[in-house]
Amino acid sequence: MTVTTTEHLAIDADAQNLLFKQARTANAFTDEPVSEEQVRAIYELVKYGPTGMNAQPLRIVLVRSPEARARLVEHMSGTNKEKTGKAPLVAILAADTDFHDELHRVFPIFPGARDAFLDDSRREGAARLNAALQAAYFLIGIRAAGLAAGPMGGFDTAGVDAEFFPDGKHRSLVVVNIGKPAENAWFDRLPRLDYEDVVTEV
Amino acid sequence: MTVTTTEHLAIDADAQNLLFKQARTANAFTDEPVSEEQVRAIYELVKYGPTGMNAQPLRIVLVRSPEARARLVEHMSGTNKEKTGKAPLVAILAADTDFHDELHRVFPIFPGARDAFLDDSRREGAARLNAALQAAYFLIGIRAAGLAAGPMGGFDTAGVDAEFFPDGKHRSLVVVNIGKPAENAWFDRLPRLDYEDVVTEV
Repeated sequence: MTVTTTEHLAIDADAQNLLFKQARTANAFTDEPVSEEQVRAIYELVKYGPTGMNAQPLRIVLVRSPEARARLVEHMSGTNKEKTGKAPLVAILAADTDFHDELHRVFPIFPGARDAFLDDSRREGAARLNAALQAAYFLIGIRAAGLAAGPMGGFDTAGVDAEFFPDGKHRSLVVVNIGKPAENAWFDRLPRLDYEDVVTEV
Repeated sequence: MTVTTTEHLAIDADAQNLLFKQARTANAFTDEPVSEEQVRAIYELVKYGPTGMNAQPLRIVLVRSPEARARLVEHMSGTNKEKTGKAPLVAILAADTDFHDELHRVFPIFPGARDAFLDDSRREGAARLNAALQAAYFLIGIRAAGLAAGPMGGFDTAGVDAEFFPDGKHRSLVVVNIGKPAENAWFDRLPRLDYEDVVTEV
């Protein structure tokens, strides 16, 4: 069933297409570099996305140097090794499980906020959930900057954590390649679940 | 430090403001209803957001009837009870831990995909991560529809799961109030972490 839904949206067709409808996960990129200024523009846009208690646990490691790239590729799975080796820029998106140490800055309206997260398991769950929300905002931001994202879950998370976060306090969630898409950067679009598969009303 | 970054973005200022820069978590709403057609328009936009192996584990329960609303409010924390009771529409965003049963439909390019998720712990982790990415896409979609979102993490997740997902296979992540914002719907904007707090380059 095709439903004409565009009249319910408040962003124009170009933005709908750039961010979602025509956006695709890129598997190959041109050689054009991605600058620190571009990443800063993305962050300055998506930093406003909501998180629980404004906790903002996402931390981002931009992997650019050949030495760092090689250390990361080692932990990527299968065909992700080649993609990660060749992308103009790669970002490790991780949750800081010690986010509660920043709550006095970011959630000053509740001085007891830090104490609500002394339990390690509860704190890690909140870090993973909220950092994943922010990871999604960041992926949308990459597209909003006219770039293509190639997010990947296929990597050894424990290996990446040990290699890039030796403090033991961070949990890598997603690794994302960033750049201008090459020709033939896409696989065929995979099927999406129908509204009726996903949404129920009670 | 103020940085002029807009020239690096490919969406216009209106879309930047609507989705992120001027968007705010609403704490009060007008009485104007949110229709099923509006939610469908949001879903048809954000269903294209990327997930690992295209797994799409997000499931959404729209809580509209007074009876269902009362069942939900029971499990909300503190001031979230009143907000959830009054919002035009409330959505429970949950992860389906049996998402792997749909992989044959959504990831047909890898027939062994389901078998990669037979381990319960690994499957739940993937469900939570990918459903959280989709929850964020959905929040952005609410804003793209010209509505305000009021996402909340303050509720008894086990209670909501037992009440709304008696199969024991779903994990509620976020409850979100949806509607047109009332006057004075916002608290003051809370501080965001600086780029230098969040992003490092190696």
